[in-house]
Amino acid sequence: MEEVKPGDKIKISTVKEEITGVLIDNQENPEIYLIKLKSGYNIGIRKDDVLKIELIEKRKDKKEEKTERIVDKNLPKIDIIVTGGTISSKIDYETGGVKPLTKPEQLFEMYPELMEIVNIKRIVMPFTKLSENMDYLDWKAIASEVEKSLNDKNCAGVIVTHGTDTIHYTSAALSFFLRDLNKPVVLTYSQRSSDRASSDARLNLICAAKMAISDVAEVMLVGHGSSNDDFCYALRGSKVRKMHSSKRDAFKPINCKSIAKIFSDKIEMSGSYNRRNEKKVILDDKFSDKIALIKFYPGMDAEIFDYLSSRYNGIILELTGLGHVASDEARKNLLPSIKKAIDNGLVVCATCQTIYGRLNPKVYSPGRRLEKTGVIFLEDMTSETALAKLGWVLGHKDWRAKIKEKMLENFSGEINLRLEE
Amino acid sequence: MEEVKPGDKIKISTVKEEITGVLIDNQENPEIYLIKLKSGYNIGIRKDDVLKIELIEKRKDKKEEKTERIVDKNLPKIDIIVTGGTISSKIDYETGGVKPLTKPEQLFEMYPELMEIVNIKRIVMPFTKLSENMDYLDWKAIASEVEKSLNDKNCAGVIVTHGTDTIHYTSAALSFFLRDLNKPVVLTYSQRSSDRASSDARLNLICAAKMAISDVAEVMLVGHGSSNDDFCYALRGSKVRKMHSSKRDAFKPINCKSIAKIFSDKIEMSGSYNRRNEKKVILDDKFSDKIALIKFYPGMDAEIFDYLSSRYNGIILELTGLGHVASDEARKNLLPSIKKAIDNGLVVCATCQTIYGRLNPKVYSPGRRLEKTGVIFLEDMTSETALAKLGWVLGHKDWRAKIKEKMLENFSGEINLRLEE
Repeated sequence: MEEVKPGDKIKISTVKEEITGVLIDNQENPEIYLIKLKSGYNIGIRKDDVLKIELIEKRKDKKEEKTERIVDKNLPKIDIIVTGGTISSKIDYETGGVKPLTKPEQLFEMYPELMEIVNIKRIVMPFTKLSENMDYLDWKAIASEVEKSLNDKNCAGVIVTHGTDTIHYTSAALSFFLRDLNKPVVLTYSQRSSDRASSDARLNLICAAKMAISDVAEVMLVGHGSSNDDFCYALRGSKVRKMHSSKRDAFKPINCKSIAKIFSDKIEMSGSYNRRNEKKVILDDKFSDKIALIKFYPGMDAEIFDYLSSRYNGIILELTGLGHVASDEARKNLLPSIKKAIDNGLVVCATCQTIYGRLNPKVYSPGRRLEKTGVIFLEDMTSETALAKLGWVLGHKDWRAKIKEKMLENFSGEINLRLEE
Repeated sequence: MEEVKPGDKIKISTVKEEITGVLIDNQENPEIYLIKLKSGYNIGIRKDDVLKIELIEKRKDKKEEKTERIVDKNLPKIDIIVTGGTISSKIDYETGGVKPLTKPEQLFEMYPELMEIVNIKRIVMPFTKLSENMDYLDWKAIASEVEKSLNDKNCAGVIVTHGTDTIHYTSAALSFFLRDLNKPVVLTYSQRSSDRASSDARLNLICAAKMAISDVAEVMLVGHGSSNDDFCYALRGSKVRKMHSSKRDAFKPINCKSIAKIFSDKIEMSGSYNRRNEKKVILDDKFSDKIALIKFYPGMDAEIFDYLSSRYNGIILELTGLGHVASDEARKNLLPSIKKAIDNGLVVCATCQTIYGRLNPKVYSPGRRLEKTGVIFLEDMTSETALAKLGWVLGHKDWRAKIKEKMLENFSGEINLRLEE
C-alpha cells in the first residue's frame, strides 16, 4: 500500500465506500486513519477495513526558508520564525480586512529598522495561520524550528512572530517543550497591522530583537507595555494572558512581574530569570491532545463530567473564588460526578476563573471536600498554561504514576511561589 | 394525589420502582417530575407513569425574618437581605475554616456601626448558601425579596449580603429581573471574615449602607476599591467581575468606569446613573436554565457543539481576540458544527475571553464567516452577565422571534456603547 503521511490528500477505499480527504496525525489511536473531509468534519476508518489507499496530492510543504541577511557584520545574528497573524499581514484594501504575507522575506521590506539591531541568519515560515487556528501540532512545528536555532552556535537568539489570539498558549507550550533553555526565545505580535498609523508592529519587533540578543534564557512574550508607543514589556511565556481584545498593551503578566521593560535606549530588568548558557537544548514535545478546558458557572450540569470523562484523559476546570464548584448545598451538586470521573481515570486539574490570585481550597469546607475527590489544584497557574502543561504531562507515558507531582513541578516559572496574598 | 411543591422531600411510586428524593422545580418540562436523589444525581419521572406520591417532609422554609431595628429615628430605613457567604460567616476555630451565621440578627452584633448610618426596617434571610452553590432559583428568591423592599414606600433602599464567588452573576441577574428600578439595590460581600484583622466586611457594609440611601437607582456591587482600608467602589451590577481570588479589592469594573467612590466623609460620583424615582418596580424573573457557558481553546473538538445542541437552548461561547474560533485553516474547523447547531435551533452568543475590550468580528475574514453562521456577538458584555441575560431572554416565550434583538438591547448598561478602542 502506498506510503502516506499526515497532511497528504488521499483516497481510501473500504468494502463500503471511498473517502477522499486529508490524512490527520492520529498518535492517540494508531489503528485508525483519521481523515479530514472537505466539509470540515473528520472521519475515522479502521486500518483493518482499508482495501486501498491512493495518494491524491502530497502535503504541501509550506516551509519557506531564506538564509542570511547580513547588513552590518558587527551586529549579532538571530533567527526569525514567521507563523502568521497581524504582524505578518497587510490590509487588503478591497475587503477592508487583513491578509497574510506569502513569503517570509517580505518581513524585511515591512520592517527594515530590524536590520539596525541584528543580522538575520535564518528566516523560516513553517506555516502561515491566524493563531486561533493553531493547535498542538503547530506548537510542535514551532518548537522544532526554535530548537534548531537554539542549538546553532552562530545564532544568538530566536524571534517567533505570531497572531495574538492564542499566542499565550503557544508561549506556554514552548516553555515546556524546550528543556535546558540556553538563549532567548521571544514571541512577538501586533494588535494592529503595519500599514495602520497606530500599528504596534514596529516597536514590538524592535524590542523583540533587543531581547533576542539579551542575556535572558527564557521563553518570553514581547509587546507594548502601555497604550503609548514608548516601551515594551518582556513577559514570562508561561505567565501571560491576552487581557484586551484591541488595545496595543493587550498582554499582561499574571501573578508575577514582567521580566524586563525595554526602552529605546535601555533594558530595565525587573524580575528574576535564567541567564544565557552553553547547554544543549532538548526538544521534549510529547503531547496528548485528549484534553479539554471547562469553566464552572452557576447551574452547570453534572452530566458534563460524564461526557468529558468518556472522551478525554484530562481536563482543566476553571473554578470560582479560592477553588470552588457547586457542592452539597446546591441543587446540582457536582462533587459526585467529579469524583466518579476521577475514579474512572480522568485527570481533573483546577485553575481560577478570577485569573489573578492563587487557589486555596482549604479555607472553606466545600473546597476541602472537592480536594478529597482528587482534583489537582494548580496554585496560581493560568488556565491557558495549565491546558498546555496538562497535554505535555499526559504525553509522557512514563509519568503516568506521577501526574499530580509533574503538574505541580515548577518547570518554567509557571507557578509563582512568592505570590503575595 | 398529594399536593407537593419544589423543595419537598417525597416518595414517588411507579409500576417499576419507588424513588425517594427532593422535588426540583422543572418549568422547562412540566410533564416530568425531576427528583434530586441523595447521591446528588437527578432523575426524571414521567407524570403519566406515577402511581402514588407521598410527602415525606415539607420543604424547610429557611426564611428568617426580623423587623424594625430603630436606633436613631432621624436616620433613613433600609432593608437587608442576608444570603450567606463570608460577610455573614465566622471563623470556626475548631477546623480553622469558616461557617455561616444561623440567624440574620447576628449581623447587628457583628457590625453595630451600621446603625450609625441607617435604621433597619426589615432583615431577612431567604436562604443561607455559599455563592458557588446558588443558581437561577436563588436569583429569583433574592429578586422577589428585593422587589418587596423597593415597592415599600417606607424603605429607602436595599442591601443584599452575598458570597463573593458568584456575586457578579447574581448582580447581573438582578439587573435584568428588576424592571423600572426606583431605588438603590446594593450587593455587598467580604473577602475575609469579620473576625480577621484584615477583614473588609466593616468598610464594605458601611459603604453599602451609604449607597443604599443615595440617589442612585441602580443594581450595584459595593466593596473595597484598593488594597487599603480607605474607600469603596460602587460598580454597575451588570459590568463587574471578580478578578482576584483573595485580595480585598477583588472586584473590578469591566469596560466602564465605577459609578461612585465612597469615602468616609463623601461620595464621589464618577459615571452616569439612573436617579431615585417614584416608579413601581416590576419583577420580571422569567428564566430558562437550558443554557451553558463554554470557552473556546486551541484544539477544541467540534463534537462538543452536537452535545450542547442536544441539551441546551442557548450557549455563551467565549471567543479569542476580536471574536474568533478555529475555522477553515485549522485541523479542527468549528464553523460547520456551530452552523449546524444554530440551524437546529441552538442560540449561540459570543463573548470575549480577553474580558476587557469589545468584539469586532468584521476585521478578519474568519470572523466574518463566523458571523454568517448566525452567532450573536455581544459587544463588550462579560460572559457572566451574558449567561444571566441569555437565560432571562430565553425565559420570555413571547421574545422567541427577537432573541438577537433582545440580547443586544441595553437593559441595564450591560453594553457600553461609548467604550473606546
